[in-house]
Amino acid sequence: MKILGIDPGIANTGFGIVHSNTTRNQLMQYGNIVTDSKTASELRLKQIYDKVINLINEFEVEEVVLEDVFFSKQVKTAFILGEAKGIIKLAAANSAIPVTTYTPLQVKTSVTGYGKAPKAQVQKMVQMLLKLKELPKPDHAADALALTICHARSYKLNKIREKFN
Amino acid sequence: MKILGIDPGIANTGFGIVHSNTTRNQLMQYGNIVTDSKTASELRLKQIYDKVINLINEFEVEEVVLEDVFFSKQVKTAFILGEAKGIIKLAAANSAIPVTTYTPLQVKTSVTGYGKAPKAQVQKMVQMLLKLKELPKPDHAADALALTICHARSYKLNKIREKFN
Repeated sequence: MKILGIDPGIANTGFGIVHSNTTRNQLMQYGNIVTDSKTASELRLKQIYDKVINLINEFEVEEVVLEDVFFSKQVKTAFILGEAKGIIKLAAANSAIPVTTYTPLQVKTSVTGYGKAPKAQVQKMVQMLLKLKELPKPDHAADALALTICHARSYKLNKIREKFN
Repeated sequence: MKILGIDPGIANTGFGIVHSNTTRNQLMQYGNIVTDSKTASELRLKQIYDKVINLINEFEVEEVVLEDVFFSKQVKTAFILGEAKGIIKLAAANSAIPVTTYTPLQVKTSVTGYGKAPKAQVQKMVQMLLKLKELPKPDHAADALALTICHARSYKLNKIREKFN
């Protein structure tokens, strides 16, 4: 199963693609989609959308995973973040790929065993779990990879549960 | 100039299309795109996106207008509204159509002359200005039509200003 995790943002959209099978999670790609604040917001959204569509096609992505964030210090930030998240969901829907969301608590618990783990610890655990030579950077990309790990584990646990039911 | 005004929402997306020339604003279409809360959010966003793309193509829309809302009682609502707004912007960008946004104050002032006009007054003025037989309903559609009127006026005022400069 090829999983694309995305941590969306209008300026920085972190992404990570992991190929997960019964025995291991293998990193395929990770990175950060950057857009210029001088560009009109609809064109920035298009740049992110096009890049995500390209990733889905290039890596034959089968699952898209997003964080279920409903917290923001500023309402304005929530609106802008929502716009980026909306077009990622659309990219998945237009590629007939299901979207799964997890709360930050679920992601942190799955990756580090601790729901309130700091960002640095998440990064370190992602590095270890995916056997990366370097710490995954920036934060957005590490968060996106953490989402893929969380999804792969959740999927495996569900399979085991089904087997025993 | 064919203007598409949109008041986005995940459950209800009001739209209005007006053909504006130097002498008058003529209504082409208005309505409300409704999605089912039982459907996955990415599929609801796709339904809205597809419908907006259809409207743009069918009516040869040249301008898209949205409200610049950065106020919400709940942060969660802002995230969800942002998702709907993001895909409308993307629909415009994917159709190579510019997006203009106006604040609720600008729209109300333009349509009723009063920035704090109640919804009913906006509806009534939209009806009069577009010479509609009935009050435009629902609110979302009336708001979308108000956006097109605001944009048409703003465009004309800019043209006059350019002429005198």
